[in-house]
Amino acid sequence: MTQYVAGIDLGGTNISAIFMDAEGQTHGWVTWPTEAARGPAEVINRIISLTKFLMDKNSITAQQLRGIGLGVPGLVNSREGRSVFSPNLPGWRDIPVAGLVAAGTGVPVLIDNDVRMAAWGEKLLGAGRDREDVICLTLGTGIGAGIFIQDKLYTGRDESAGEIGHVTVEKDGPRCSCGNYGCLEMYASGRGIARRMRAAIAAGAASLVLDLAHGDAGSITAAMVCQAAARGDQAAEQVIKETAVYLGIALAGLANILNPQRIVLGGGVMGAGELLLAPVRRVVRERAMPLNREVEIVAAELGDLAGATGAAAIARKEFMLGEERATWTW
Amino acid sequence: MTQYVAGIDLGGTNISAIFMDAEGQTHGWVTWPTEAARGPAEVINRIISLTKFLMDKNSITAQQLRGIGLGVPGLVNSREGRSVFSPNLPGWRDIPVAGLVAAGTGVPVLIDNDVRMAAWGEKLLGAGRDREDVICLTLGTGIGAGIFIQDKLYTGRDESAGEIGHVTVEKDGPRCSCGNYGCLEMYASGRGIARRMRAAIAAGAASLVLDLAHGDAGSITAAMVCQAAARGDQAAEQVIKETAVYLGIALAGLANILNPQRIVLGGGVMGAGELLLAPVRRVVRERAMPLNREVEIVAAELGDLAGATGAAAIARKEFMLGEERATWTW
Repeated sequence: MTQYVAGIDLGGTNISAIFMDAEGQTHGWVTWPTEAARGPAEVINRIISLTKFLMDKNSITAQQLRGIGLGVPGLVNSREGRSVFSPNLPGWRDIPVAGLVAAGTGVPVLIDNDVRMAAWGEKLLGAGRDREDVICLTLGTGIGAGIFIQDKLYTGRDESAGEIGHVTVEKDGPRCSCGNYGCLEMYASGRGIARRMRAAIAAGAASLVLDLAHGDAGSITAAMVCQAAARGDQAAEQVIKETAVYLGIALAGLANILNPQRIVLGGGVMGAGELLLAPVRRVVRERAMPLNREVEIVAAELGDLAGATGAAAIARKEFMLGEERATWTW
Repeated sequence: MTQYVAGIDLGGTNISAIFMDAEGQTHGWVTWPTEAARGPAEVINRIISLTKFLMDKNSITAQQLRGIGLGVPGLVNSREGRSVFSPNLPGWRDIPVAGLVAAGTGVPVLIDNDVRMAAWGEKLLGAGRDREDVICLTLGTGIGAGIFIQDKLYTGRDESAGEIGHVTVEKDGPRCSCGNYGCLEMYASGRGIARRMRAAIAAGAASLVLDLAHGDAGSITAAMVCQAAARGDQAAEQVIKETAVYLGIALAGLANILNPQRIVLGGGVMGAGELLLAPVRRVVRERAMPLNREVEIVAAELGDLAGATGAAAIARKEFMLGEERATWTW
């Protein structure tokens, strides 16, 4: 009887789940809308229902499911299995999510922050798999990082390491939701890119992006900016170029501080591909110290599956292999 | 027969040395001018002569000296005992300094970067001694850091971690000797503070600092700026305030990335004391994420002795206690 674990990635928009077997092979990727507005109890019910749906669909019995790994956005207390606070999930404050999902599914559950789960995915099965000192960033609605030092995840004193999105890249820049000014997230997140494109259009720039948004500046997305830049739209190219400068400054800083071997960039913003990667690499080469600038900067490989894959991989280590958690603060 | 190790701190201006016994007690601090302009061979002779002088003075025989720890500025290959490159020591490029000093003194020698040696001093015997996750900065002619994670020094892939002085704090700031623009070092190092004070005076600011420099703007030092600010000089206060903003931005970034328990600030610039520390703490509280801003920010305790003390402490671990070096990349 084949044994499995499940990996679940809880996002503000979608919940994704995947199975993994003892050999580390993944199966049966499924994604549902989160319906986060309905509050934590309903979202947790949906996680439980999605798990059962996935089990039925793949004919996996409760006896075959050894455990669940769950990635949760925001601040997480992984030891207590508790979501401390999640700005993108209305009402999520001090929710004992691991216990609730375990009670609803009848299998043990471990949780961690979604960015760290995606980082585990890339580290173990994606673009970071053959490197020891790797930093895996997610550039999405927000920006965060999982820092691996000699194959171990470093989470810091209060599980709050890796908050690269809130490093200041523009001293007097716009105020961020975190209270700081000029955070990287204000420039290089999906929202940050869309915001700057809207500002350029409001300032009179002619751009294809406005056509892609059917004339409604309010509905501009980072994906539209990338699409327009790929077609040679100058205003969009300018926004991507500026994004690369800010991202390059932050990554050069990270390289100077930690001297990693590789930086992996994932998340929706990386839909831009080489359009963004090439100038980012150039900025890091220009700005980091001689040895630190040798860092490899590569695109993530798992795309939308990174979070669920990482959660499954960790659940496999914990619940199937009985490995000691390869981290310092867990 | 009491056994000792020596700790030596090689600086661009002075060489300092100290003894340490098996109990970790230090003895006989001595400092000589480096005379760096005379080139590497002469400087290495001075290190050897200083060691012999110190032994004679303290009646310590060659049989009692178990080893030497030596801090060298710039890029160091600690495994090979080699100074790779040192911008503040003319002619220092690929110098097998550990072997040369060992040959001249007849005792084994280990070396590391001077900033890391000072960080070891504060970590083991100074302001970082009761914390596991500590970052020790030296704010001097340059700026660098030793990063301790769970009591171990993290040096990165190529021994080039901790280069916090070359993190960008002003995107379009002045060019640094490292090639980057707007590095922290351009603002918060001794030279950076003096440079900005001179610029303020050149722009017409009236300041006591010019009197302290006997009317010669070229000879203004950071110490004079601190002295004037302590006496209420407004132009000097403004420079210190701006220094605190840049330093606070860099430390908030460090706290967001690494979530340490404590940050220790040492080096000549910290002669400013609370005048600088208080506003730095305020900026970090304002700019770092909620849990990350809880980091303790304290002044170093060992002053000018940090480097030699740290070098001695590491030599004691290595040559007297036979401990495994508490670091990952050594």
